[in-house]
Amino acid sequence: MKAIGIVVEYNPFHNGHVYHIEQARKSTSADVVIAVMSGNFLQRGEPAFVDKWARTTMALQGGADLVLELPYVYATAHAPVFAKGAIELLDAIGCDAFCFGSEDGDIKPFEQSISVLQNAGDKYEQIVKEAVQSGLSYPKALNEAYLYAVQLSGQSLPVADLTKPNNILGFHYMQAAREINSTMAAATIPRIIAGYHDDADDEQTIASATGIRKSFFDFDTLDSVRNFFPQGTFNTLTAWRDDKGSFGNWDSFYPLLRFTILREGPKRLAEIADIAEGIENLMFRAAKNNNTFEGFMSEVKSKRYTWTRIQRMLTHIYTGFTYEHRNEIGSASYLRLLGMTEKGQLYLNKNKKKLKLPLISKAAAFSDPSLQMDIHSADMYALGIAHNTNPPIVGGDFKRTPIILP
Amino acid sequence: MKAIGIVVEYNPFHNGHVYHIEQARKSTSADVVIAVMSGNFLQRGEPAFVDKWARTTMALQGGADLVLELPYVYATAHAPVFAKGAIELLDAIGCDAFCFGSEDGDIKPFEQSISVLQNAGDKYEQIVKEAVQSGLSYPKALNEAYLYAVQLSGQSLPVADLTKPNNILGFHYMQAAREINSTMAAATIPRIIAGYHDDADDEQTIASATGIRKSFFDFDTLDSVRNFFPQGTFNTLTAWRDDKGSFGNWDSFYPLLRFTILREGPKRLAEIADIAEGIENLMFRAAKNNNTFEGFMSEVKSKRYTWTRIQRMLTHIYTGFTYEHRNEIGSASYLRLLGMTEKGQLYLNKNKKKLKLPLISKAAAFSDPSLQMDIHSADMYALGIAHNTNPPIVGGDFKRTPIILP
Repeated sequence: MKAIGIVVEYNPFHNGHVYHIEQARKSTSADVVIAVMSGNFLQRGEPAFVDKWARTTMALQGGADLVLELPYVYATAHAPVFAKGAIELLDAIGCDAFCFGSEDGDIKPFEQSISVLQNAGDKYEQIVKEAVQSGLSYPKALNEAYLYAVQLSGQSLPVADLTKPNNILGFHYMQAAREINSTMAAATIPRIIAGYHDDADDEQTIASATGIRKSFFDFDTLDSVRNFFPQGTFNTLTAWRDDKGSFGNWDSFYPLLRFTILREGPKRLAEIADIAEGIENLMFRAAKNNNTFEGFMSEVKSKRYTWTRIQRMLTHIYTGFTYEHRNEIGSASYLRLLGMTEKGQLYLNKNKKKLKLPLISKAAAFSDPSLQMDIHSADMYALGIAHNTNPPIVGGDFKRTPIILP
Repeated sequence: MKAIGIVVEYNPFHNGHVYHIEQARKSTSADVVIAVMSGNFLQRGEPAFVDKWARTTMALQGGADLVLELPYVYATAHAPVFAKGAIELLDAIGCDAFCFGSEDGDIKPFEQSISVLQNAGDKYEQIVKEAVQSGLSYPKALNEAYLYAVQLSGQSLPVADLTKPNNILGFHYMQAAREINSTMAAATIPRIIAGYHDDADDEQTIASATGIRKSFFDFDTLDSVRNFFPQGTFNTLTAWRDDKGSFGNWDSFYPLLRFTILREGPKRLAEIADIAEGIENLMFRAAKNNNTFEGFMSEVKSKRYTWTRIQRMLTHIYTGFTYEHRNEIGSASYLRLLGMTEKGQLYLNKNKKKLKLPLISKAAAFSDPSLQMDIHSADMYALGIAHNTNPPIVGGDFKRTPIILP
């Protein structure tokens, strides 16, 4: 059975994702599609719209055959670390190839880019470092060094445009695969949605997840975004709303975040992963002054830090993830199975012995600091969600077994 | 001007307190009554029903002339430390005497008790220590040692019954006054309410604050307890309810407390003041399992720890008060003025130069780790209270000036 791996967040799963899965399967003639998916906190440093179990259900309904959890430590990290974790998992589960969305859907420019940077060597890292020290944001520093390396190489063939978010991730997937000497092939398919931050246009049936969420929060009804979902997603989201009454986002998590920032104080905040350079003082002051997340962010945001980078720090504050915690965690060390179709199950049965990492069906059966953080962050997420009908279940993630769909 | 000092919580202020102030004033022929009052967290380890500013207003309306804040570090400590902080403040502001409520209203047995224990010397401390080590709760250990000392002394005159909460505090006030060589005289008046935990009986006009709060939370209306308050208190509580919609108690603070316990985890909980002997593991498990404060407490409560002692730990968890914080704080170092009548103001003007500690009218004007904790705990309290009409004001305590009533 040929397996293609994809890296996803599904926040939430929509028609564009159905298309993405279909294309990935077709373009690589794969039998099974394996998705590595973020847990309850996402790469942009946000709580997910709905939790990983609801998103797994939607993914399986929408065409994925296996869903693995990308551990918290990777899922909430910047692109190089995020990509490394995801690629390690796809490699360990035995994928023949991985496939990502890019602006142009052409893998060649990515290959040129990798080769250009390989030739630039240490010089590249050094430029990145200097650019960050000079006050540039990390993505901008990367791009600066990249442009320099391209120029230096005299490369005349097209290289990937690394100012586009999807291209950046794709590039890092390929670099990570190289680093671990993976035998996986790389493939890419073109994005079909115009811009990442575009609003959902209700005359279309495909919009970005960001646009869908924005439209949802603006109109406060799932009907306003119904066109963009497969029926399964719509049902899952409706059931979630009926049970909880609210969806995950920083606006509704802010009272707990604010309490935590003020309780901790700058000194203890400085122990939290990614907090540096005195931003803890700024955050403490902003939490004092602001009753809303929007107000808080507008006080903390500056040129020096991207919105995403600040949000990642806030995620770590919210979950209590310290530098010390992070230091205990090394490379990817387990495959946490969130769900599978019968075909996915067949794949696992056939490849059981080839897996490079232990497959975890029930978290309680395995002990690992990274897995503990996955479970802990799921509990923290549950406490942030309002609960209409049932109070938050804490410790549920620890006992839960994978979702199995036909 | 003769000044009498009293130590109070006013949670909330009621008719029994009016009587107490009147009696204290009369029995000592005092011109002004100076109340040292806990801030937003109380000696039983609970958030106050309403904040210190609302309680100061009620106290001034009800007959007190000056209200000073008992700093957090004393207000949330066990009887000996609580009493020491309170007596240091009353001594520093120049009181001629202090007056406390006791079961029988007779000061002699307390004087006998003090003398008995003075004679027992180190032996007493040693028995307390051994009794605690043998598994007895602290109050029971104290009583054990006390009974032994009485027996040893061959004392035939009556001694105070130190199993009664009011008597215990009274005894510690007297002991503290001795320790600091205070020239204040000691006086006591009898309690007029039967038992500390009695329910409010609506055919009476005097009930314990505990009974009043219980009746209020049972019936969820201030009308049910209206008879027990002076009009000023009723107005202040009504205004509070209209503005906030909720009163302070652990039931409503529990979501923030639970989130904090689960976020911290046992290892960091162990750094919190008073946490010891592995109770952090029990608390972590109980927070996982319980959606309500009641359920949480019934899982944590054991013979070894009194309810009050557990609640004090929870207060410190909630406010983030660590052993390290506490170690930075020494003896009482300031007089924080919460409010005064014109007569109280006159007293201060006349005695300005005799004060033994700096008088703080505005927290922003003074820097001290204990005062910082008072302000911080006020902020933490504000975040726990629901807010109907206005969002919580954080940092308000830092800027606030004393209440002045005619």
